[in-house]
Amino acid sequence: MTIHINTDTKTLQLNNKRSENSGRLLVKCPDQPGIVAELSKFLFDHESNIVESSQYSSDPEGGTFFIRLEFHCENLPEKREQMEADFQAIAGRYSMEYRFAYGSERKRTAIFVSKEPYCLMELLWEWQNGDLETDIAVVISNHEVARPMVEALGIPFHYIPANKDIRKQVEEEQIRLMEEYDVDLLILARYMQILTPEFVEHFPNQIINIHHSFLPAFIGARPYERAFDRGVKLIGATSHYVTNDLDEGPIIEQDIERVDHRDDVVELKKIGRQIERRVLAKAVKWHLEDRILVENNKTIVFH
Amino acid sequence: MTIHINTDTKTLQLNNKRSENSGRLLVKCPDQPGIVAELSKFLFDHESNIVESSQYSSDPEGGTFFIRLEFHCENLPEKREQMEADFQAIAGRYSMEYRFAYGSERKRTAIFVSKEPYCLMELLWEWQNGDLETDIAVVISNHEVARPMVEALGIPFHYIPANKDIRKQVEEEQIRLMEEYDVDLLILARYMQILTPEFVEHFPNQIINIHHSFLPAFIGARPYERAFDRGVKLIGATSHYVTNDLDEGPIIEQDIERVDHRDDVVELKKIGRQIERRVLAKAVKWHLEDRILVENNKTIVFH
Amino acid sequence: MTIHINTDTKTLQLNNKRSENSGRLLVKCPDQPGIVAELSKFLFDHESNIVESSQYSSDPEGGTFFIRLEFHCENLPEKREQMEADFQAIAGRYSMEYRFAYGSERKRTAIFVSKEPYCLMELLWEWQNGDLETDIAVVISNHEVARPMVEALGIPFHYIPANKDIRKQVEEEQIRLMEEYDVDLLILARYMQILTPEFVEHFPNQIINIHHSFLPAFIGARPYERAFDRGVKLIGATSHYVTNDLDEGPIIEQDIERVDHRDDVVELKKIGRQIERRVLAKAVKWHLEDRILVENNKTIVFH
Amino acid sequence: MTIHINTDTKTLQLNNKRSENSGRLLVKCPDQPGIVAELSKFLFDHESNIVESSQYSSDPEGGTFFIRLEFHCENLPEKREQMEADFQAIAGRYSMEYRFAYGSERKRTAIFVSKEPYCLMELLWEWQNGDLETDIAVVISNHEVARPMVEALGIPFHYIPANKDIRKQVEEEQIRLMEEYDVDLLILARYMQILTPEFVEHFPNQIINIHHSFLPAFIGARPYERAFDRGVKLIGATSHYVTNDLDEGPIIEQDIERVDHRDDVVELKKIGRQIERRVLAKAVKWHLEDRILVENNKTIVFH
Repeated sequence: MTIHINTDTKTLQLNNKRSENSGRLLVKCPDQPGIVAELSKFLFDHESNIVESSQYSSDPEGGTFFIRLEFHCENLPEKREQMEADFQAIAGRYSMEYRFAYGSERKRTAIFVSKEPYCLMELLWEWQNGDLETDIAVVISNHEVARPMVEALGIPFHYIPANKDIRKQVEEEQIRLMEEYDVDLLILARYMQILTPEFVEHFPNQIINIHHSFLPAFIGARPYERAFDRGVKLIGATSHYVTNDLDEGPIIEQDIERVDHRDDVVELKKIGRQIERRVLAKAVKWHLEDRILVENNKTIVFH
Repeated sequence: MTIHINTDTKTLQLNNKRSENSGRLLVKCPDQPGIVAELSKFLFDHESNIVESSQYSSDPEGGTFFIRLEFHCENLPEKREQMEADFQAIAGRYSMEYRFAYGSERKRTAIFVSKEPYCLMELLWEWQNGDLETDIAVVISNHEVARPMVEALGIPFHYIPANKDIRKQVEEEQIRLMEEYDVDLLILARYMQILTPEFVEHFPNQIINIHHSFLPAFIGARPYERAFDRGVKLIGATSHYVTNDLDEGPIIEQDIERVDHRDDVVELKKIGRQIERRVLAKAVKWHLEDRILVENNKTIVFH
Repeated sequence: MTIHINTDTKTLQLNNKRSENSGRLLVKCPDQPGIVAELSKFLFDHESNIVESSQYSSDPEGGTFFIRLEFHCENLPEKREQMEADFQAIAGRYSMEYRFAYGSERKRTAIFVSKEPYCLMELLWEWQNGDLETDIAVVISNHEVARPMVEALGIPFHYIPANKDIRKQVEEEQIRLMEEYDVDLLILARYMQILTPEFVEHFPNQIINIHHSFLPAFIGARPYERAFDRGVKLIGATSHYVTNDLDEGPIIEQDIERVDHRDDVVELKKIGRQIERRVLAKAVKWHLEDRILVENNKTIVFH
Repeated sequence: MTIHINTDTKTLQLNNKRSENSGRLLVKCPDQPGIVAELSKFLFDHESNIVESSQYSSDPEGGTFFIRLEFHCENLPEKREQMEADFQAIAGRYSMEYRFAYGSERKRTAIFVSKEPYCLMELLWEWQNGDLETDIAVVISNHEVARPMVEALGIPFHYIPANKDIRKQVEEEQIRLMEEYDVDLLILARYMQILTPEFVEHFPNQIINIHHSFLPAFIGARPYERAFDRGVKLIGATSHYVTNDLDEGPIIEQDIERVDHRDDVVELKKIGRQIERRVLAKAVKWHLEDRILVENNKTIVFH
């Protein structure tokens, strides 16, 4: 079953055209005067028009400077190589860490899911709707539940049973698939398996998880049960990059809903699902649009 | 300086009249069929009209039943003694814990504050505005900062310096003042001193604190600093009854605001103050209106 | 394609058992003392245990009284006829308008949709998830877009082209289908056609619409465009019962999201879709759970 | 009575130092490539370090470009004259409308208030707390209610009775006071008088009002009463610049709170007061920090 979402074809073509010639430059370097002048002159000299610019300095004196520049450049695909070559001089002079990203190169995504498909469904829905700048390359699950909805959209689905005892083989197979499908981003859309440090280190700041609590409250298992036991008046969800400290990775987005004494654990989970869906979808969207920089286990998100 | 808030005198008199004849009955007992019938018949037989009714059962089968009935009864002040006497038979039959409360008997409040007066100011403002059903009997502080604004409103202010070494004497003096002023509720409006178990046990479910985080995240000291370090995208505040487990008492109300990477600790505190003000004011209001029942370290709040 | 949502079978059976024996009584009558006593005694005498009770009086003196009682009664399906017969005496005495509803009789729903299926999808998703107490009897659309996703779930789909000129025939056909499918509730899930007064009068307080603005702002067509032109900082959605005053029917639920100057109309629509989805789903849920009473073009919603 | 708010003196001195050398440049011009390069080079050449930068283009092709640059420059007070002189060449070349603003020159504010002082109180509180970058030059009221709290803070208070018949004289007196006190911004903190077109034209985009509804819903008088009659589930408040179309000026900020059927008009007003307080305070703060640009009756707010 392919769901045909209504779209305005003309708008779409225009968007494609635009995105083909759109680029992003993300830079991090020690703060000092003149960086913005340098970068904006560079783009101007390369016939690029800045369409969006966001910057942040951890401290104007002696801090770290971060900037995200979104630019438009006619015939960018032909010019980008030269542009990147020319940029090296500036980068060296200012000790910049940087990356270029291009609208013409959509990131490739893998979604990992277990039994509960609601976060996956939300992502598929946003994707069909044109709201996620990505190619969903593959969905991997330790259950068969999600297969029909994934395959109906023409996306490859791989069933890899998983448990503690076979973790090593499972992860080897997963890493192989990530390579085979040339994946840039892994989304844990309620994938209820622990990942080994080896696996995580393979994908630094490339794995986004959704945790079903407002971290750092209720780190670990069964957060809704523990929220119920504690009698909180708000429940939440947190999406974050995965590191090897459980639920301690850089937070990308969080949100909450109000609950009260009448809400039992089943009801908390229902309410929570709505939060998880939208929080994960936002985090993924921002990652795909290169809006997130990671520094000291925290994120800078340029909305 | 007395701040004269604009009020509609006619409305006020009507409200006073109404509150004189208004009563509340709060009941907790093992759930079984017929309780509501029994209670509503009792009130009807005592010429009382139910104006608000809220109930909750932890489990219809074998659970605990909670109800809050707000009623109107002409000449209630004369009738209440008889009513309470008559109620004992029902209470016995159903093993009820219960309490009657009367609009004619406003609760008496003590506010404890340290250097930062914003939560105190919010409470004073709500109180002047007629939104808190209480007589503020006394304000106690370990600093002199709040004295002028308190005394300007004709409220007694007691300065009691406090520190770890003299805690025992300080608390004895405080307890003496609570008795002298005949206080029903203690509000810790940013009172930055630890209370001893002896003090806390003196006032079970009678001390409301405001903690500057969305508990159970950031229990203990310096929650804004720790929120900043963790890079959360939401900060919050929690009001709760004080027990002898630090920041672990029954939660009454919580709320949050969105923050981002640009907000340093100073900014988090500014934003947080707004949350603390409204969260504490709500919790206090609900306590004063007898809307809160405590069970198993959780609250049932009948809005 | 049938999407199999993970559910806990044991919980489900218990829920079914419970809902078979669960009933609701909704009452509206002139306020006077003793109503609650009367109703709760009635239920007790009919071996029914009240599990949820919500009431509201427009004015304790001379106002209108509303109550929703949810009760549990063993073997309710066998007893309900007698119960209803017995209730007539009380109803007469207090001039009550009332209705009984039963967990064993799920309401039957028709969903109307045009080209954009996102509200439909949300309802289908909630329904599959067990969160909507209804049988979705039929989906009707003036486009073919939604057919695959509807039929994949085994729900009949009827394509009825619609335009101004053939409105009369279209509505006759629709009414015929409503009767054929024995429908209790019509949901306009972004059905972009005007309904005639005749059609609307056929289904009083039985048609729920989602309007894409926070009414009464932006009544009528193109609310997102007008929100953009006005430069509002919040956009919203409103679900309401349909009456013959366009967008003026009783409001059931509203919500908003924050927007800013960067959001063009396309972006407003994207953000708005998320609001519309959740607002409509909530309104429908509350209707199905008999939580809504309509009075003077306003709703009383007993959450 | 002067309320001494606890502040960290060292932080304050540092802030003062910083703000003395901090400047802002706001620019609006036809969009074209190279503007950011030009502006950032200009600031760099004038030894100014950009600490915050926000930009927006209504359309990258043929649209209007807006930018707000916040910069730090040692000894800015001595250098600013030269800087402004040098800027004219750039401004001419790009057809820029622009303004410089300086941390060393706090805007001067007049607050207008009628009987209800809660919005005034919030502003005074924020101001004492160091959160409003302004000198409150004068408070003007058609009632005496607010006098004590204003004079206690050492702020001049002028009582000018107002009504329809004497509007012309009243406004002449007010304009005279605005000149006498050298006021940059007028805040209508619940000033319940209509202003004449002559008065409004005197202060273009310099008068901020708080309207007690989420505009464009409930334009005009008695919005809470009308919200109650309509049965909305959210009430709101809107702060906007005053123009000569009643409640139609550029919206700066809006917010809402949830209400339900139990909230009568008195309760709506209570809830609404909290919204009005925070919405007005935010709008004023952003204006004072030169974060707002007005274009086509809409605001661009650079948070």
